[in-house]
Amino acid sequence: MTDLPERLLAGYRQFMGGRYAAETARYRDLAAKGQSPETMVIACCDSRAAPETIFDSGPGELFVVRNVANLVPPYEPDDRHHSTSAALEFAVQSLKVKHIVVLGHGRCGGIRAALDPSAEPLSPGDFIGRWMGLVAPAAQAVSGNSLMTTGERQTALERISIRYSIANLRSFPCVKILEDKGRLSLHGAWFDIGSGELWVMNRKTGDFFRPDAA
Amino acid sequence: MTDLPERLLAGYRQFMGGRYAAETARYRDLAAKGQSPETMVIACCDSRAAPETIFDSGPGELFVVRNVANLVPPYEPDDRHHSTSAALEFAVQSLKVKHIVVLGHGRCGGIRAALDPSAEPLSPGDFIGRWMGLVAPAAQAVSGNSLMTTGERQTALERISIRYSIANLRSFPCVKILEDKGRLSLHGAWFDIGSGELWVMNRKTGDFFRPDAA
Amino acid sequence: MTDLPERLLAGYRQFMGGRYAAETARYRDLAAKGQSPETMVIACCDSRAAPETIFDSGPGELFVVRNVANLVPPYEPDDRHHSTSAALEFAVQSLKVKHIVVLGHGRCGGIRAALDPSAEPLSPGDFIGRWMGLVAPAAQAVSGNSLMTTGERQTALERISIRYSIANLRSFPCVKILEDKGRLSLHGAWFDIGSGELWVMNRKTGDFFRPDAA
Amino acid sequence: MTDLPERLLAGYRQFMGGRYAAETARYRDLAAKGQSPETMVIACCDSRAAPETIFDSGPGELFVVRNVANLVPPYEPDDRHHSTSAALEFAVQSLKVKHIVVLGHGRCGGIRAALDPSAEPLSPGDFIGRWMGLVAPAAQAVSGNSLMTTGERQTALERISIRYSIANLRSFPCVKILEDKGRLSLHGAWFDIGSGELWVMNRKTGDFFRPDAA
Repeated sequence: MTDLPERLLAGYRQFMGGRYAAETARYRDLAAKGQSPETMVIACCDSRAAPETIFDSGPGELFVVRNVANLVPPYEPDDRHHSTSAALEFAVQSLKVKHIVVLGHGRCGGIRAALDPSAEPLSPGDFIGRWMGLVAPAAQAVSGNSLMTTGERQTALERISIRYSIANLRSFPCVKILEDKGRLSLHGAWFDIGSGELWVMNRKTGDFFRPDAA
Repeated sequence: MTDLPERLLAGYRQFMGGRYAAETARYRDLAAKGQSPETMVIACCDSRAAPETIFDSGPGELFVVRNVANLVPPYEPDDRHHSTSAALEFAVQSLKVKHIVVLGHGRCGGIRAALDPSAEPLSPGDFIGRWMGLVAPAAQAVSGNSLMTTGERQTALERISIRYSIANLRSFPCVKILEDKGRLSLHGAWFDIGSGELWVMNRKTGDFFRPDAA
Repeated sequence: MTDLPERLLAGYRQFMGGRYAAETARYRDLAAKGQSPETMVIACCDSRAAPETIFDSGPGELFVVRNVANLVPPYEPDDRHHSTSAALEFAVQSLKVKHIVVLGHGRCGGIRAALDPSAEPLSPGDFIGRWMGLVAPAAQAVSGNSLMTTGERQTALERISIRYSIANLRSFPCVKILEDKGRLSLHGAWFDIGSGELWVMNRKTGDFFRPDAA
Repeated sequence: MTDLPERLLAGYRQFMGGRYAAETARYRDLAAKGQSPETMVIACCDSRAAPETIFDSGPGELFVVRNVANLVPPYEPDDRHHSTSAALEFAVQSLKVKHIVVLGHGRCGGIRAALDPSAEPLSPGDFIGRWMGLVAPAAQAVSGNSLMTTGERQTALERISIRYSIANLRSFPCVKILEDKGRLSLHGAWFDIGSGELWVMNRKTGDFFRPDAA
């Protein structure tokens, strides 16, 4: 087989003839001057929820971390390597972003797994089980509520997880300090794949609402 | 201030009037049937190297992990949470992707930090230092070569890191087994921001070449 | 057999009916007034990298030295005969060229030999071994890097050798003085045989880039 | 100033749009399979006498050494670096060329210098003086002949030098052995810049004649 799937090569040629051709100067400028995005987005790996697509963003606009269920672990300074914490540190301390957005979405596979008590480990390492273990207490609290539908529990945990990640962001001293100084703001948002609706978290109440709705 | 940066809200409206309006049926279908991407991409958080942009990909096509310097840590089954390993496990075992692409890029800030011996920790936690520590041995080997220019050392380590991540992918039993069965293929690619060039890794030699050039 | 290979005689007839017929006046003028090329090129003997072909040059344009791996030895004033130094002296002092270009290329056999620790001398005299010995220290430094591929090490040494030759050019007092006066400029370039790409050395950083790309 | 003279960049673009575009497959093939030229040419650096131009040669055809006055020094196995001997060894032992052509030309600056008793060193190193010293005995013998015109002495020494270089080629054991076995043949030729005439050396008598003349 070839060294790269033909679909990707075809897409790349599309990019070169399209966006790159139209924004060559911008790409060269971004290469020469380096990136200086104002916003960091912590999103899910889900193929249906790419932040650049949802926010119609161009090159240089969004510094993006993507992991399963867009989770931010709590501050754990130790000798281990922490993927998300490293990206957070780089965005805040080196790039000095002004905004951090935790972008969740509906029908999230990671959240579904967390809500499924009968879920078997996907592999002996059970990496998904341990990763989603970050929201295990919340998952147990929600799954215990038999009055909500499966769909409601799913959406509920998706939004609880966004608030949980934002709370963890504040456990990082550098984030807390800059937010208190008004130089960094934290945001939550939730994307509904089917309807395309974007629900934004009210920073005071934690509720999610549609900005463009009445 | 508003609950979400105005730029993002404006971009979202652009998306709704553009891509979503044009692909509503596709989004509804992806919501109802779930995602089934054929490709997982492990990319960098860099705001200039979004895989959906470079590959001109639509909703449902790419399952994307993004961390600093697009690194895949070695297989470490323990009781800790591993962001990248969890995403890998989900993509391979649950989504059964057919391709995994490690997408690196030029002028990577994480790689630059790894090559800078005088780099100070960005914060007391030194998360970037520990994260890039994954390629510390390679960084030391490359930075020791004073005959290469700073730019050549940077490019060399960016490519060595891609090969390193692909080697680590194979340290995951589920990846190794499926690759040996011919049901999963691993790819490396490197994007040059300024020129927009995509260099693809030759799977046999590990060299990077431009598919449309030679 | 004839006194000259038939292929060469046929090619010569082609030249007489073509280029010479078209540029007779130019050839006569160059014979009468003598040559006054603005550029000296130090290139490799490789049959795939003729500078007049790569630069589409006409008669009188390029003063060309060609040796294995386009090397310039350091300044060694002694009683020996030095082929490259003699040509350099003639170009700079007698012809007063304004530019000197060290033109390297990919897949260079001399460089490959220098990187091959198990290389046997080609003859008892080991002339190639002694000639490539000029870059032996660099070759050792590069070949020690097992993290780079064979192809990457080859390209790295090809480019390091160009910078080495340019540095040696400056060890010649007449070159150094004229460069400092702004009357002579030194350039590096690297030709990729397969793709036909010409990479030019950035005189400040020593990096190689494609002028028509970025 | 730019990193490469604009004239060369323009010529390169001409090459890419012309010869390379027309012979892309040939270049790729030469890159993949390596060079295997049948002929080695030892020519002068003179900008008016490029062998690829005179023989209308394409990529891969001629392995070319160019030094001042197309001289081949005698066989000197020692610990020094010998540019021309190294190229000769590589062509004969590694590439196994079938023909070696020593290509001289009229109005050669090196020969003129050798014939000028009042010539001052071009620089303290006097590299040209030492290099042309290879033919000093012949130069003295010719310049002493006051019955010949300056032009006749020049042409005479140009041709004597070609025979001298061919004799030196035979001082290399590997050349002598292969020539005796009939697997390598040595040729001499002389190019007249003004008239474009190519004079070929009769291998038996050493005389130069025009193959296309009556």
